[in-house]
Order: sequence, then structure tokens, then C-alpha cells
Amino acid sequence: MKITVLSGGVGGARFLRGVRAHVREAYPDGAGGSTASVTAIVNTGDDMWLSALRIAPDLDSITYTLAGESDEERGWGRVGESERVSDELRAYNIGWPWFTLGDLDIGTHLARTSMLRDGLTLAEATDRITSRWPLGVHLIPVTNDEVETHVLTQDGADLHFQEWWTRHRATLPAARFVQQNVEAALPAPGVVESIMTADVVLLAPSNPVVSIGTILGIPGIRAALRATRARVVGVSPIIGGSVVRGMADACLTAIGVETAADAVALHYGSRASGGVLDAWLMAEEDASLAPAVEAAGIRASVVPLWMRDTETSAALAAAAIAAATHSNT
Amino acid sequence: MKITVLSGGVGGARFLRGVRAHVREAYPDGAGGSTASVTAIVNTGDDMWLSALRIAPDLDSITYTLAGESDEERGWGRVGESERVSDELRAYNIGWPWFTLGDLDIGTHLARTSMLRDGLTLAEATDRITSRWPLGVHLIPVTNDEVETHVLTQDGADLHFQEWWTRHRATLPAARFVQQNVEAALPAPGVVESIMTADVVLLAPSNPVVSIGTILGIPGIRAALRATRARVVGVSPIIGGSVVRGMADACLTAIGVETAADAVALHYGSRASGGVLDAWLMAEEDASLAPAVEAAGIRASVVPLWMRDTETSAALAAAAIAAATHSNT
Repeated sequence: MKITVLSGGVGGARFLRGVRAHVREAYPDGAGGSTASVTAIVNTGDDMWLSALRIAPDLDSITYTLAGESDEERGWGRVGESERVSDELRAYNIGWPWFTLGDLDIGTHLARTSMLRDGLTLAEATDRITSRWPLGVHLIPVTNDEVETHVLTQDGADLHFQEWWTRHRATLPAARFVQQNVEAALPAPGVVESIMTADVVLLAPSNPVVSIGTILGIPGIRAALRATRARVVGVSPIIGGSVVRGMADACLTAIGVETAADAVALHYGSRASGGVLDAWLMAEEDASLAPAVEAAGIRASVVPLWMRDTETSAALAAAAIAAATHSNT
Repeated sequence: MKITVLSGGVGGARFLRGVRAHVREAYPDGAGGSTASVTAIVNTGDDMWLSALRIAPDLDSITYTLAGESDEERGWGRVGESERVSDELRAYNIGWPWFTLGDLDIGTHLARTSMLRDGLTLAEATDRITSRWPLGVHLIPVTNDEVETHVLTQDGADLHFQEWWTRHRATLPAARFVQQNVEAALPAPGVVESIMTADVVLLAPSNPVVSIGTILGIPGIRAALRATRARVVGVSPIIGGSVVRGMADACLTAIGVETAADAVALHYGSRASGGVLDAWLMAEEDASLAPAVEAAGIRASVVPLWMRDTETSAALAAAAIAAATHSNT
């Protein structure tokens, strides 16, 4: 069983933890692991250069979460963090005072930056960084090229996504999201292959605009999703008309999509009509919206979507895989 | 009074602290500072790229010492250091395991690297970094260009100076020191001017080969030292046939110079004969060597050289300035 997951950061990380738990149980290898292989194609649009560091928030969120090193209480970053280096950077007026980098996290950024400086690609650097822990999931950045998401606000400002998201908490009305240099970008080696050879392709309940949307914007990804023989199943990041976490509603509003489980499914579209979805998992709260999804040619499954812990995340992953592999939902 | 000091790291830092203390007393500005201006031209041959960081050990040693932030007990780095980032880098197999970077120190390296990435020169970055503290000394890297000292060992190995010095404790017999790309290097803006317009030029008791020697190797520096109307006074780093600190003897041996106060003076040479010195301060222990120095056309002053504290360092600085400004030593 080969499972490929398109994923953003924190929500994607929790979903991937569920996928890993599920496959260890459903496809055990007898040694605590799984005979199934799980590949995560990870958004890099939030990546940036800051204080001479190459920062890849989504790759790191997933790595730390799968490694058991994430700060679950705070919801981001490494557990047991300190901020001695950031205090120094602030004293030198370097970086963004509103974007604090933890010392342990800086270790990862420095390792990545050092490898890039030595000529490794981001994917190669990711392989080396993740090899520190037995993650059970193969992480591939969607592209090795620097394709950073910028936000053009309605007031005409052009901000890196992180500035709009973290500094302004997505409160500046966005007019448009731009993936800089996306035309020239290539999927990282293995990305298209992992979609084409998968038994199941899942879209994590990540931000549909700046996480999954950024992945879909890389030339070649949509074509692979349309061509693969695997079923493509998405998980709604919207429950009962609200985003589960983050501020995806501000992103959806900017691109004219309602913050609703059916609207996001229709935004992705059915494979039959040039979109990317075969099936869509939506919450019980949104059962009334299922017919609209089905009418668009996307099979809707109504299941519990809240990922409260590893068990509920694993059940969600199981439901997603079931939606892809069984004829009945 | 304008004083220009050619300087390496730790020894140079202590000497500069003495110069600063002396000028505050001898040329007070009435506000705790001095009407004299002190410029340090600092060796950059020990600089390197490591773990994606641009590291400038001598600039930082001087900055931390003059800022009162240096770890006096350990003899290097920042006081109150921790090593959380370095532990991470080690876990990722990044960098040199034998070269530990402190967290506070990494803050400085990241600030510098970030500024260089933004297009600032090393001198401009140094101005911004040092502006954090009222140092009382203007630090200028001898060059903005990357001229790193490599050691060719007698066994044919080619090591960055730091590897030879810190990892191997200068125990691998050196055949030669090479300043990479020195032919194309230019003195940083202000370096030649600070020598030409100085009232006094001092050579700190730093390593004559890889600190002062590296400075003298940058095209234009020797010519400026020969052309300036200021007297050029050197302070012996050798007392009683031993180096005061560090392993300069290994460097001197490699270039065929005896570890002796007179031999180093003759190695620098008198300005009258194409060298750089007008006068030379040597320790009472080496008084018997003074005639040899005088015979080479360099005025020898026998004074206490041990810098035990700020007072003794200030007295040494006073003696050096006196040797430059008075006709009698």
C-alpha cells in the first residue's frame, strides 16, 4: 500500500500522525512499523529567508510532530524551546521582532541553510534532517525551487505570506496570493512519481489556498493528480462553516470561496471535470452539504473530522483511505 | 590624538582595553570618554564559513572584550554562554564537532551573515554590530574580502587555520601559511587612511604570523605603514622566549623565526630598511636582547609587558604611545 499525502504544516502534521498510526495498525510489518509506505508532499510556499536562515515552517512542523518533538501546548515549534539567539538578533535589530525563532529551531534552520550552501537541494537537505528521527513518513518538499507566497493586499501592499499571516494575523484584507517565480518551478524529484504510483492520494485538511493551493500551483502537480490511477480523497479543513485552525477563512474570502465544506470541495473540483478530487470527507455537522458535493461529481463521505488525539486522527485517516479503496463510503 | 592599532583577537583585545583606559585618563573628554580616537585594524584571516555562518573570531573577541561581555575565565567567547544550537547542529552532523559555537555568539554570527546577505560589506556589518555597545574603539576589518589563512602542513595537508589551530592545537608541523586570494584583496575603506592620518600606529602583541602577518599581507598595508608620518611601535608577543598566550611559537617556527623578542622585531624589520617598525617594546626579561633590536635600526624600549588587568594593560599602552611620541624612551 502506497499512500501519498499533500500537506501543509500543523494540520497536515496531525493528519500525517494519524495516517502513520493507522497504517501501523492496518498494515503492520511485525516490528512496530508498517508495510505501507507513506509519502508527504509538503508545501514550501511559507518558506523564507530570515536572518540569513532558510526557514521551512511546514516541513519543520511535520518533522517535529512526527518526531514527537513538537510543542503540543503552544501548537507550534519544538518542545522545550528557549530564545537566547532571538534575543541577540533583536539586540542587533536583525530579523522580524514579531517572528521569534527558538534556539532548537534555529539549529534546524542552520543545518538546512548549511546544506543548501553546500549545494544540496531542499529535498536532499530534508532527507538528511529527517533521517535524525524514525518518522515513518517520507517528506518531500513539493519543489526545490524558491516559490514563496506573497500577499497583495487590497491596500496595494505586497507582503511575504508570513508577514501577512503571523504579524498581521491575516487581518489585512487580501486581494490576491502570488506564488513568486512559480512558472519556472519544477516538482522536486519523486513528487510526481509518488502521485503517479500511489494507491491512494490524500489531501490533508490543510489551508486550501496557501498550503494545498500552493502545492497544486507547481507546474506538473495537477496533471499528475489527474493522471494517477489512485483515487484522490480530500479532507475538509472546514467544519460547520469554521476553519479548524489557522485563518484559512481569510484566504478563502480573498479568492472568492465561501468558508464552507462544500465550497472548498467545489473549489478543488472533481477529477471528471478538470479538478483534483474523487472523494471528499466532511464532518457530520456538514452532512446537509453532502448533496452539493455529490452533485459536482465528488463522492462525499460524512465522518468525524476532529483530530483530538492520535486515535481520532488515525480513524480519520482510515476513513480517508477507505473512501479511496472501497466502492461504498 | 589619533591612535591606530593593528590587532589580532584575544591579546589584541586586552591591549585595546588598555589603550582605551589610557586615553580616557590621558586625554579625557570630561564625560568619561576621551578626546583621542582609537581605531583598531583587525585581522580577518581566521574568519570562516561554518554551518552557514560567517564567523569573524578576532572582530568578535575584541568586540566582546571591549563591551565587557567576554568570558574572562574561559578566555574566549561571551560570558554566560550556552550551547543549545550547537547540540542541535551536532545531532544533524553539521559543522565541526570540535568547534562549539555558543548560542549568544551564534546571535552575532547570524546578525553578521544576515547583513552580508543583504549586501553590506564586512566593515559595514562590523559598524552595525559594534554600535550595540559604547566600545570607545572603532573596529575596522583589515579587508572586506574573504582572505582566509590556510595552513599547508609538512605532511602535505591543506587546512583552514581554525582547523589547524583549534582542532589540532597547532601540533601538526606547518610548512607554510597561505592567505587565500590575498592578491585580489583590498584594504577596507578607512584602513589606509587611519594609518596615514594617525599620530601613532601600534602593533598589538598579537600573533606575528597569522594575525599581524595577515594584516601586513593585504596589499597596500605595508606601503601605508612605510609612508605614514606617525611612528610605528610594536609590542612583543614574546616574553622570556615564550609566547604570552596562544601557540604563536608553532607559527614562528614554520616561517623560520625564532620564538624570541628580538627575532620577531627583526622579522617585522625597521622602517628604514623596508620593514614596518620604528620602535619595539620588549619585556624586562628580554633586556639583553635590546641591543640586537637597536642594531637593526629599531628603537627598543624595555617595559613591563604582562597585561594582568586593565591597569597593567593601560600602563603598557601608555609606554607604547610614549615610545612613539617622545624622543627618549
